[in-house]
Amino acid sequence: MTGADSLVRTLVKGGVTVSFANPGTSEMHYVAALDRVQGMRCVLGLFEGVCSGAADGYYRMTDMPAATLLHLGPGLANACANLHNAKKAGSGIVNIVGEHATYHIKFDTPLTADIEGIAKPFSHWVKTSPTSKTVAKDGAHAIQAARTSPGQIATLILPADTAWGAAHEVAETPPPPAPQKPSADAVTAAAKALTNGEPGMLLLGGRALRARALELAGKIATKTGCKVQGAGANARLQRGAGRVQISRVPFVVEQATAVLKGTRQMVLCGARQPAAFFAYPGKPSILTPEDCVVTKLADVEDDCEAALEALAAELGALDAPAAGIAAAKRPDKPSGKITLDGLGMALGATMPENAIVVDESVTTGRGFFPFSAGAPPHDWLNNMGGSIGFGAPVAVGAAVACPDRKVISMIGDGSAMYTVQALWTMARENLDVCVIIFSNRSYQILYSQLADVGAPNPGPRAIDMLTLDRPALDFVKLAKGMGVEGARVEDLDGLTKQMQWAMGQKGPYLIEVMM
Amino acid sequence: MTGADSLVRTLVKGGVTVSFANPGTSEMHYVAALDRVQGMRCVLGLFEGVCSGAADGYYRMTDMPAATLLHLGPGLANACANLHNAKKAGSGIVNIVGEHATYHIKFDTPLTADIEGIAKPFSHWVKTSPTSKTVAKDGAHAIQAARTSPGQIATLILPADTAWGAAHEVAETPPPPAPQKPSADAVTAAAKALTNGEPGMLLLGGRALRARALELAGKIATKTGCKVQGAGANARLQRGAGRVQISRVPFVVEQATAVLKGTRQMVLCGARQPAAFFAYPGKPSILTPEDCVVTKLADVEDDCEAALEALAAELGALDAPAAGIAAAKRPDKPSGKITLDGLGMALGATMPENAIVVDESVTTGRGFFPFSAGAPPHDWLNNMGGSIGFGAPVAVGAAVACPDRKVISMIGDGSAMYTVQALWTMARENLDVCVIIFSNRSYQILYSQLADVGAPNPGPRAIDMLTLDRPALDFVKLAKGMGVEGARVEDLDGLTKQMQWAMGQKGPYLIEVMM
Repeated sequence: MTGADSLVRTLVKGGVTVSFANPGTSEMHYVAALDRVQGMRCVLGLFEGVCSGAADGYYRMTDMPAATLLHLGPGLANACANLHNAKKAGSGIVNIVGEHATYHIKFDTPLTADIEGIAKPFSHWVKTSPTSKTVAKDGAHAIQAARTSPGQIATLILPADTAWGAAHEVAETPPPPAPQKPSADAVTAAAKALTNGEPGMLLLGGRALRARALELAGKIATKTGCKVQGAGANARLQRGAGRVQISRVPFVVEQATAVLKGTRQMVLCGARQPAAFFAYPGKPSILTPEDCVVTKLADVEDDCEAALEALAAELGALDAPAAGIAAAKRPDKPSGKITLDGLGMALGATMPENAIVVDESVTTGRGFFPFSAGAPPHDWLNNMGGSIGFGAPVAVGAAVACPDRKVISMIGDGSAMYTVQALWTMARENLDVCVIIFSNRSYQILYSQLADVGAPNPGPRAIDMLTLDRPALDFVKLAKGMGVEGARVEDLDGLTKQMQWAMGQKGPYLIEVMM
Repeated sequence: MTGADSLVRTLVKGGVTVSFANPGTSEMHYVAALDRVQGMRCVLGLFEGVCSGAADGYYRMTDMPAATLLHLGPGLANACANLHNAKKAGSGIVNIVGEHATYHIKFDTPLTADIEGIAKPFSHWVKTSPTSKTVAKDGAHAIQAARTSPGQIATLILPADTAWGAAHEVAETPPPPAPQKPSADAVTAAAKALTNGEPGMLLLGGRALRARALELAGKIATKTGCKVQGAGANARLQRGAGRVQISRVPFVVEQATAVLKGTRQMVLCGARQPAAFFAYPGKPSILTPEDCVVTKLADVEDDCEAALEALAAELGALDAPAAGIAAAKRPDKPSGKITLDGLGMALGATMPENAIVVDESVTTGRGFFPFSAGAPPHDWLNNMGGSIGFGAPVAVGAAVACPDRKVISMIGDGSAMYTVQALWTMARENLDVCVIIFSNRSYQILYSQLADVGAPNPGPRAIDMLTLDRPALDFVKLAKGMGVEGARVEDLDGLTKQMQWAMGQKGPYLIEVMM
C-alpha cells in the first residue's frame, strides 16, 4: 500500500467519496491509487476554479465535503477564488494539493512555490504531510477539519514521495466537534429583545435558512410580531410553496437601509449585522439604523436550528402556526420583450419541484425572488464571497450531489467567462444543469457602481473597461465548443419555450438570453 | 487630483503605459482616473490570468513593466498562476489590486480577504498604501521594484478611499539598481574552468540568450572549444539565421543526462545548475554528472552580457568568429499525415521574419527547435514556471508590446483551456496573433509521467483523469464564440496552407491541429 492508497482509502472511509480533480505529474501516484481503491468518484475539471466551486456546491447540497485534487502552488492558486467563495459560504472542502518530493523542493525548479503560504489565506486548516506513513492520519484530520461546523476549508499538501512511499494504515476520521447549542442567556436575551414592544427583526443566515429552521422562525414571528429576514446572500435557502417566505437584504445601500429602517431590535441567527458589500464615499458601512440594538442568538457555526427551537420554546411559540408561509402559486408564462420581471416570471413559471437554483445573475436577478416564492419547493444558492465565476462550477457540484434534481444556473455574461470551462465537465458527466446566461454585454453592475462611488459619466477609456460588446460573445458557440447544446433567445416567449423544454429533459443545456 | 489620478500619472511618468485590467467596484475611481489621464493604454481581460500573463509577455518583449488592475483578493488569486510563471521568468509587473476602503475592511464583508497574504508568495514587493497622499510615492516604488533586474513582481494594494481621497503630487520613479557587473574573480574562475583541458559547457539563461550575448558565447566557444547550451526553458531566446544556434536541456531526465554526459566543467551565466522538472522514484534531481565542476559566472539578475563580454576579453576571444552561427535555411513545406517533425517543419517553413513564438506546446513541440534554427531571426518564449495556461495570455502581451511583429502561440489543447478567455482580448484589440492548438485530446504529458513515476498501465479511473476526448473540444467554435476566426486542419498540407495564409494577414487567427 502506498501513501496515496492509504490516503484515498482514508478519504472514502471518512465519507469523502467525490474528487473534483485537475491533476499533474506530482499527483500521478494519487491518480494511480484512485484506480486501485473502490468508492471514489472522480470528476475532471479543465480549470481548477471549476473543481473548487464544484466542491462548494457539493457541500451545500450534502453537508459533506468533497475532495479536490490540485497541481502544486499554481493549481491551488487557480482554485482560490472559488475557495474564497466556499470559505465565506461555510462549505467544507478537503483540498489535496500535490507537491514536489520532499528532497526535490530545495532545487527550486519551475513549479516550486510556497504552497502553504498560498493556501493559508483561503484555508482554516493547512498541513504538509511529512512522510508516507503520516498521510492517512493527516487526511483524517483534514476531513475532520472540513466537517467542523458550518464547514471549513482543509488543505492537505502531499509531497510526491509521501504519495509513492510505503504506508500501512488506513486512518479513522475522528468525529467533528458538534455545533454549539444555544446558551440559556442568549435565548433569554433574544426572547427579551423580540418581546420588549419595539419593532423587531429576526435576521437569518446559514443553516437557519433550512426548511425546519424557517418554520421555527415563522412560529416566533407569529408569537412576537417580528419580521423574519434573510441575509443578503446565503449558502442555501430553502423556499417555495409551503415554506416560510424569506426576502434578502438588498445589495444596494439605499434599498437595504429602507428595508431595515425602523428596526429597533435585531436578533441574529446564523447571520451577521448587515454591512454594505462595498464602501462608498459618504454612505454608511453598517446598514442597521443607529438606534437598533443587535442581539446575537447564534453564530453561523452554532446549531442554528436548535437555537431557534430553544427561542421558540422560551416564547411558547412551538405550537403556534408559522407566519409567512408561501402559498402555491406560479406566475403566468410571460411573453413579449425581455424585461427583468419577465425573466423572474419565466423562472417561476417553469422551475420543477426540487430544483436547485444557483444564482449568479448579479444585476439582472435582483428582483427575481417574488416570482418564484410560490413555485414548488426548491433550494436557492447565492454567491457568498463575491468572487464572480461561481455559478457554473457550483452548479456542477450541486448536480453531482443531487443527480435526481434539476439544477438551474443563472449567470451574467461577464461572470460566466471566468469559469466557462465548467460547461465541459457538465457535458462529460451529463449533469442535469440548465445554464441561463444573461447577456447584457457589459459588467453592468460597474456602471451603477461607477456612479455610486462618485464617478458618473464615464469617458471612453472607462467605458471600455465595463463593456463586453466588442467583440460580442456567443455563448451558444462556446457551449457547443465544449459539448453542451444550447440556444439563444431574444424574447420572453422564446425563453419560456426553451426553459420548458430544458426542464423536461435530462442533461446539460444552455440558454443565452439577449438583454 | 484624487489618489487614483496621482497613481495613474505616476505610472505613466515612470514609463508604465499599459494596463492589463479586470476591474471591479473598488477600482472604479482608478478606472475614472484612466479617463482623465492621458498616456495609459487599457486592455481588458475577461479573466485575471489573461492580464497577468499578458503583463509577463509584455515585459519579455520590452524590458519594461506593464500594470495589471485586479479586483481585491480573489481577482489577485486568479492572476497568481501566471504571476508565478512571470516571477520565474524574471518579468517585471506592477500589480494594482483594489481593496475595500480602509475603514470598511473590519466589517469582513464578502470580498474581504488577506490580500497581502495572497500576494506574498507571488511577489517580490508588496505594500498596502495607507492614504491617498502616499499612493503616488508607493506607486513609484512599485515601478522601481518591478524594474529591478531581471524584473520583479511588485504588488500595490489600493484601498478604495486612498483612490478617491485627495492627493497633491505625482511621484518621480527612482532608477532601479543597475544589474551587477561580473567580479574579476568570477571571470577568472570561469576562464580557468573552460581552459583547463576538460570538456566544458557554457550554460546560458536569462538575458544571456539575447543575440549579442549569444554572439559573445559563440566567440568563447571558438576560443575554448566549450559547448554552448541553453537552459531547459527560457524567458526569451533570440534565434534564427545569423544567430548562434542554441539547444535547450531536454525535459525528459534520460535525455537531459545524455546531453550533459561527459561535461566536466560547467560555467553558468544567467542559468542554474540543471535539475529535473519533477522528482521521479529512483531518478536523480540534479542532472549534471557527479564529477562535473560547476562555476558561476553570473546570476540571472546580474549583467549577463557584460559577464560574457568580460569572459571573452579575458580569453582573448573578442575578435574570434562566433561558433555555431545558424545558416539561413528553411525546411521544405511538409505534407501528408500529421507528425511531430512535420509540425516543426510547417513552423520553420512559414514563420515570418521577426516572429515571436510563444511556446506552450508541451509534449508536442519538444522536437520543434531544429526545424526553425535557420528560419529568419525570431524570438522564442518558454513557460518558465510550469503553470499551464501561459501561452495565449503571454501572446496577448507580446502582441501589445510589438504591434509590427507576428506572434505565433503554440499551445496544447489541455493547456489552452485554462486561459481560453485570452482569445476574446485578441479579437477586441485586433492583435496579430496566430494561435495554433495541438489537439491530442489528452493531458498527453501525464501518460508518460504516469509511467515515469512508476505507475504504468493506468486503469479506467486514472485514464479518465488524463483524457479530454469526452466530449471532444472544438477550438474553432470556442474561438468563434469569442470573435476569433479559425480553422481545423487534419493533415500537414492543410496546416501549411493555413499557416501561410495566417502569416500573410494581420489580426488574430486560430488553427486547430487534429493530432
